[in-house]
Amino acid sequence: MNLETMGEKAQVASRKLAQLTTEEKNQALRSMAQALEDHTENIIATNQRDLKAAVGLKASFVDRLTLDRARIVGMADGLRQLARLADPIGDVVDAWTTPTGLEIAKRRVPLGVIGMIFEARPNVSVDASGLCFKSGNAVILRGGKEALQTNQMLVKVLRRVLADHGLDPNAIQLIEDTSHEVANQFMQLTEYLDVLIPRGSARLINAVAQQATVPVIKTGAGNCHIYVDDDADLAMAIDVVVNAKVQRPSVCNAAEKLLINSAVASEYLPAIAQALIDQKVELRGDKRAQAILGDQVNPATSEDWDTEYNDYIMAIKVVDTLDEAISHINQHNTQHSEAIITNNYANSQRFLAEVDAAAVYVNASTRFTDGSEFGFGAEIGISTQKLHARGPMGLKELTTTKYVIRGDGQVRK
Amino acid sequence: MNLETMGEKAQVASRKLAQLTTEEKNQALRSMAQALEDHTENIIATNQRDLKAAVGLKASFVDRLTLDRARIVGMADGLRQLARLADPIGDVVDAWTTPTGLEIAKRRVPLGVIGMIFEARPNVSVDASGLCFKSGNAVILRGGKEALQTNQMLVKVLRRVLADHGLDPNAIQLIEDTSHEVANQFMQLTEYLDVLIPRGSARLINAVAQQATVPVIKTGAGNCHIYVDDDADLAMAIDVVVNAKVQRPSVCNAAEKLLINSAVASEYLPAIAQALIDQKVELRGDKRAQAILGDQVNPATSEDWDTEYNDYIMAIKVVDTLDEAISHINQHNTQHSEAIITNNYANSQRFLAEVDAAAVYVNASTRFTDGSEFGFGAEIGISTQKLHARGPMGLKELTTTKYVIRGDGQVRK
Repeated sequence: MNLETMGEKAQVASRKLAQLTTEEKNQALRSMAQALEDHTENIIATNQRDLKAAVGLKASFVDRLTLDRARIVGMADGLRQLARLADPIGDVVDAWTTPTGLEIAKRRVPLGVIGMIFEARPNVSVDASGLCFKSGNAVILRGGKEALQTNQMLVKVLRRVLADHGLDPNAIQLIEDTSHEVANQFMQLTEYLDVLIPRGSARLINAVAQQATVPVIKTGAGNCHIYVDDDADLAMAIDVVVNAKVQRPSVCNAAEKLLINSAVASEYLPAIAQALIDQKVELRGDKRAQAILGDQVNPATSEDWDTEYNDYIMAIKVVDTLDEAISHINQHNTQHSEAIITNNYANSQRFLAEVDAAAVYVNASTRFTDGSEFGFGAEIGISTQKLHARGPMGLKELTTTKYVIRGDGQVRK
Repeated sequence: MNLETMGEKAQVASRKLAQLTTEEKNQALRSMAQALEDHTENIIATNQRDLKAAVGLKASFVDRLTLDRARIVGMADGLRQLARLADPIGDVVDAWTTPTGLEIAKRRVPLGVIGMIFEARPNVSVDASGLCFKSGNAVILRGGKEALQTNQMLVKVLRRVLADHGLDPNAIQLIEDTSHEVANQFMQLTEYLDVLIPRGSARLINAVAQQATVPVIKTGAGNCHIYVDDDADLAMAIDVVVNAKVQRPSVCNAAEKLLINSAVASEYLPAIAQALIDQKVELRGDKRAQAILGDQVNPATSEDWDTEYNDYIMAIKVVDTLDEAISHINQHNTQHSEAIITNNYANSQRFLAEVDAAAVYVNASTRFTDGSEFGFGAEIGISTQKLHARGPMGLKELTTTKYVIRGDGQVRK
């Protein structure tokens, strides 16, 4: 099927979706969860075929591609969780009456048709479909070619549930031609796509931002910093830095850089460094960090300051002032999550105000920037742009608003 | 100066702007207003030079290009009005404490650097600068080449006020090279621009949406409809249709299309048509409207349904049902403003729910979709996209949010 046709069908489906009641959506979500579990054997068998074709790919890639029993239960539970979440559609965000008596309500409505571009992880098919469906949006999925058969199977299961519930199955569609040409066309399907959300590597996200003429929400790049102030508690600094670096190094909210004030660097750095080395973290330091840590640290190059490792690596820079820390962060960060460890009130206030990022922390790990940690219940990604949504994106971030205005014949003078 | 340098300076300025107090901003706005009035003679003389070069251009274009005493007072009053408006920066949109004791506040912050691309009207330089400044954003302006000297003069006046107040004049910059090449580079200045807002013709806006790699907010296209239901009050229908069409035909919220239910078409259409003709509106009708109105109406072509006239022209279509009206609107509208005239409650509810537009009206003129009519006090444009902002955009729509999180050493388990 060509993309125009898919777009048209998605748009038709989206208009019907927007009118469903919360309960109609929740029932379908619960049935989707059940259907996935009922088809566990089938899904695993199909996934095995994708995995067989994935010879020679990196172990981490193969891991992301793999669906086992636990992951299928996880996807199903995610859908059930969505069914329990509040439905943002219909919420009145603001309302007032004008001097001429017009009643204006700003009401939350679905975006319409959402495009998702992602890579190896087939669970994105289900997670994104569930989030889009609950928020009243149609979705068109374009997953990586390595996961095609698995994605086809998952989408088939979900679409059948929609049909069984008397709903339009075209609310969830998968692009089966995984060529780059079709992906590029998809990014320019302005007539039908209201937004395009890429999920995956920085390379994918930047390519989409470059190619797309459809509005894009950039997600997931995280070159996150922790700044240890001259008035910081050492034990807290160690706890937070180690947690932010190693609790899950592969994700975007993991810390990649440690900045430390020169007034405490000689005293604190050896202890923090040792704690990181104990967790098998490779350290890279600027000249002053090297002077303090000696052999424990490799030299950092200028490239390091802009690199998101997503790995057991951390670069360390010694700074003389809070100003220098803030300015380094604002120059090199990806506007994701940044933290200061301090007991100085004025410094905490300045850091929160002046660091430009989706989430700014005092005395806590950057790892908390996450839809479930924030209490959103579900997340389609973490926006690192300023337009539309910033930070973890839950159901509300998949909506727009509409001014609903009731009058009794008013005309403009 | 090249664009990279301008972008860098704007970014530096924006970081300082974000930290200003409301009163500091308001004082500067009031000084800007005074300075414009003080330079009235100078501005008019400069504008005359632009006007002299504008030989052979359309009268409406020359009118938009012209600054006279009244328009300068208007710009100054606009800035004083901005000084009186509430400052959205710093507002806490949402706040909660997580189970682990993290205090999360979602705080309103400026977008950063805003790019404005516009055409003949030099007053956009002042209006946009004021709105961006009040909302804590730096702005880079790119106006039409015909207004270059006037824009240079206006921006010079505003920048001098910034400097006099000890503020960074690079908060307001003008691109003086009005070539297409530089405009295209501007649209791709992703490292420095947080958003690009085109203001002007549909041609300009579409060109920007196509070319830009920077996030764009599309504004201003308005192919607006009024549907006269079978249960409508005729007098109200005439009032609203005439007001929406002729009160100011050149603007985006003026109605371009009249849909009327076939059950009342023979009775209502002649009276509505006569009222429009009395206002010198050219009517174009489908076959059924032609059958009713005869010589009073020209034949509408299929192109008419997608055309925004911005002129004394209105196309008329007879429909059999509310469904047909909604589906015609959703197929042809620009998602700006749509109205139904009806006394039928169920029909009003369905129209409000099912028509996809920034503003949907029952029994009122589409002309009310406007920042000042909505009570926003000022407006940078009317967004016809769904991402970030929809409908009239005031100060709040020139902001983003930031999660400010205070902890006492929390780490993620």
